[in-house]
Amino acid sequence: MAAHRRRSEPVGPEAVETRSLHALGSSVTIVSEMPTLSPLGIVGVGQIARMTQQAALKLGIQPRLLVEGLDDSAAQAAADRVIAHPDAVAGLVEECGVVTVEHERVDIGLLQALEDAGHCIRPGIKTIRAAFDKIHQRRILLNRSLPVPVFAELNSADDLIDFATVFGWPVVIKSVRAGAAADRNVWIVESRAEGLRVMSEQAGRPLMAENFQPIVTELVVILARRPGGNIRVYPVVESIQKDGQRHVMRSPASVGREIANEARAMASSIAEHLDAVGVLAVEFFLTNDGLIVNEIAARPHNAGHMFIEGSPTSQFENHVRAVLDLPLGPTWATHSAIVTRNVIGGIDRVDPAQNLADALAVEGVSVHLYGKMAAPGRKLGHVTAVGDDLDQVDEMAMRAEAALLGRRPSW
Amino acid sequence: MAAHRRRSEPVGPEAVETRSLHALGSSVTIVSEMPTLSPLGIVGVGQIARMTQQAALKLGIQPRLLVEGLDDSAAQAAADRVIAHPDAVAGLVEECGVVTVEHERVDIGLLQALEDAGHCIRPGIKTIRAAFDKIHQRRILLNRSLPVPVFAELNSADDLIDFATVFGWPVVIKSVRAGAAADRNVWIVESRAEGLRVMSEQAGRPLMAENFQPIVTELVVILARRPGGNIRVYPVVESIQKDGQRHVMRSPASVGREIANEARAMASSIAEHLDAVGVLAVEFFLTNDGLIVNEIAARPHNAGHMFIEGSPTSQFENHVRAVLDLPLGPTWATHSAIVTRNVIGGIDRVDPAQNLADALAVEGVSVHLYGKMAAPGRKLGHVTAVGDDLDQVDEMAMRAEAALLGRRPSW
Repeated sequence: MAAHRRRSEPVGPEAVETRSLHALGSSVTIVSEMPTLSPLGIVGVGQIARMTQQAALKLGIQPRLLVEGLDDSAAQAAADRVIAHPDAVAGLVEECGVVTVEHERVDIGLLQALEDAGHCIRPGIKTIRAAFDKIHQRRILLNRSLPVPVFAELNSADDLIDFATVFGWPVVIKSVRAGAAADRNVWIVESRAEGLRVMSEQAGRPLMAENFQPIVTELVVILARRPGGNIRVYPVVESIQKDGQRHVMRSPASVGREIANEARAMASSIAEHLDAVGVLAVEFFLTNDGLIVNEIAARPHNAGHMFIEGSPTSQFENHVRAVLDLPLGPTWATHSAIVTRNVIGGIDRVDPAQNLADALAVEGVSVHLYGKMAAPGRKLGHVTAVGDDLDQVDEMAMRAEAALLGRRPSW
Repeated sequence: MAAHRRRSEPVGPEAVETRSLHALGSSVTIVSEMPTLSPLGIVGVGQIARMTQQAALKLGIQPRLLVEGLDDSAAQAAADRVIAHPDAVAGLVEECGVVTVEHERVDIGLLQALEDAGHCIRPGIKTIRAAFDKIHQRRILLNRSLPVPVFAELNSADDLIDFATVFGWPVVIKSVRAGAAADRNVWIVESRAEGLRVMSEQAGRPLMAENFQPIVTELVVILARRPGGNIRVYPVVESIQKDGQRHVMRSPASVGREIANEARAMASSIAEHLDAVGVLAVEFFLTNDGLIVNEIAARPHNAGHMFIEGSPTSQFENHVRAVLDLPLGPTWATHSAIVTRNVIGGIDRVDPAQNLADALAVEGVSVHLYGKMAAPGRKLGHVTAVGDDLDQVDEMAMRAEAALLGRRPSW
């Protein structure tokens, strides 16, 4: 927390802003033209960065955001922001005690060079590499004898045919590199023709094949880990997809205590092995043969939004605490039933902000909107309900979600 | 919520900011030079405005703040801010659907003129007048047959002597006008000489006298009211002062259900009568003769901070909902014991941000820091603990408070 000591110096944006007001004819005095420091830099554009910075401000920590445009969800809420290409992280690390990266569009070679030069980047390059490159991630997990789907690199049509010959159709084709939320990253193909079409459409993008898993359900474990190794694990979340997108998240998950504990233990062991710092999310498939690790995300995760209301410490606050090496807060569930539903834009492009009154009229549901322009498939917000009975709580959340999207409630 | 419809237009600060980047030699394109609209304007500099805007952002509402300096607690967290004298509210009302006022330094005549011209100022001038001018406030309460301390205007030394002759010493001398948090506004004087010294030191400030009330305890009722009259009342908070400042707040208050209900009913009736919109806080003295209304504040109140963690809806979110005429959220207590302690700067000027790690190590206490420079008597943050037992919860909060101030815990 050394950077905190410099809090009393004027911060960069003040200098910029006062100069700009000056240029515009205002009489505001120039505070300083010296670039100054922030304890926490955040590279991010979306709701994850937006909510992370809110958590930092609550603790009196003024983060500096590296955003890409003023309309970014994160930028709209950021008093201290730099608008530039993500590779401007090279400048951000000079100005911030710690830099945390929300999205996957930063050049990993650049991050590696910055870490090698002694800058503090979190979760750390080892973890970021594992999160960004799914082939690399799978190899790490296999080396740890953790269960993963069967997979192969797809460098040619032959690779696909070979894979399908052994494991049969359908084949799951995935982008190797974790991509922007807006991009499609997974295709389930039923035939050689379909598979080759995807490969040709996605030419230039590294792809991988994996065998199709008939799953019982999908589970997500969210945890926070400090540099010294101290870990706090949130209750297991059950995740339900709709149209290929994460849609409904419920806690507790509808699995036995043994499965839940196994998932939490595996997630902790992965965090330990990757030496992850900050929030780590591990997505699991529960199959008839048991748990399989599907994916790892090295940042606060959609499935953890429910802990804003459903735990004494939100995942965002614990992320801030972890990356700044501050003591973590409790992660237990404050309610016996918690449900979060994503508010996903429809083809009608209804703006949920227009329907806020209807959603707030659903008693006891907490509404979060991200300030994003409505577009089909875009996550525009989420709603969380807490209580004693999962189905009842889910119905409340569903009514608020439907209200925001101007629809009749439907399951 | 009409102003919401204009969300897709570029907002003012973008225009300013992009122009400024341009002036500084950056290649960022000018988005627009047109001043644009925000659904919610907030006039405020401190933690109340800071936390109110956080609540607005959660709902996807981008507020515009009128602050006085870039170091203001509210400014540090505001992406959309105007730095100017509070009287620039005359411009803010043109740019915002609704404007809410956090502090008492705005000219009431100006606000009245703006309201008369059809602008939407909340809580509304009738309420603001009652909150700002304590003589006016007392007269309103007396007209409603509500119990208030005996009081008199102090225009001369004779007024003080006359008052003391009838009601005896000590006399409480108060500033008529609600003042900035940094100013001293109340003096308990034991003699004519002491009283005259205060009056001479405060020459030019309107003062009032009231009789000294031996009180059992101090209670605060926080409520939110929509324009249509819909009211939600929070549980009664007990407030404990130290060195003349609000220090510890506990809920439930150590009073019987009857007293608590009476306080809540009186507060609702006052809100109704003032046609208040937004959060209203009514401070009561509990004396051996029953409840007396001490003061009214027409905005989120220090005693309501505990409902961030201790209720499904924070006072800040309900304030935003109320002033925008959106449905209010539930105000019940989520825990059977809630304690908030203010973190008040000491003469040693210890910066609580330096001791954040020690405070976060107190398991289960929620820490809020306001980004303010440490100074004696200044409210720098607050801590809230929730649980089942008031004394146990208070002890947790006390330990976190002491940690932030670098002191040994003491009651």
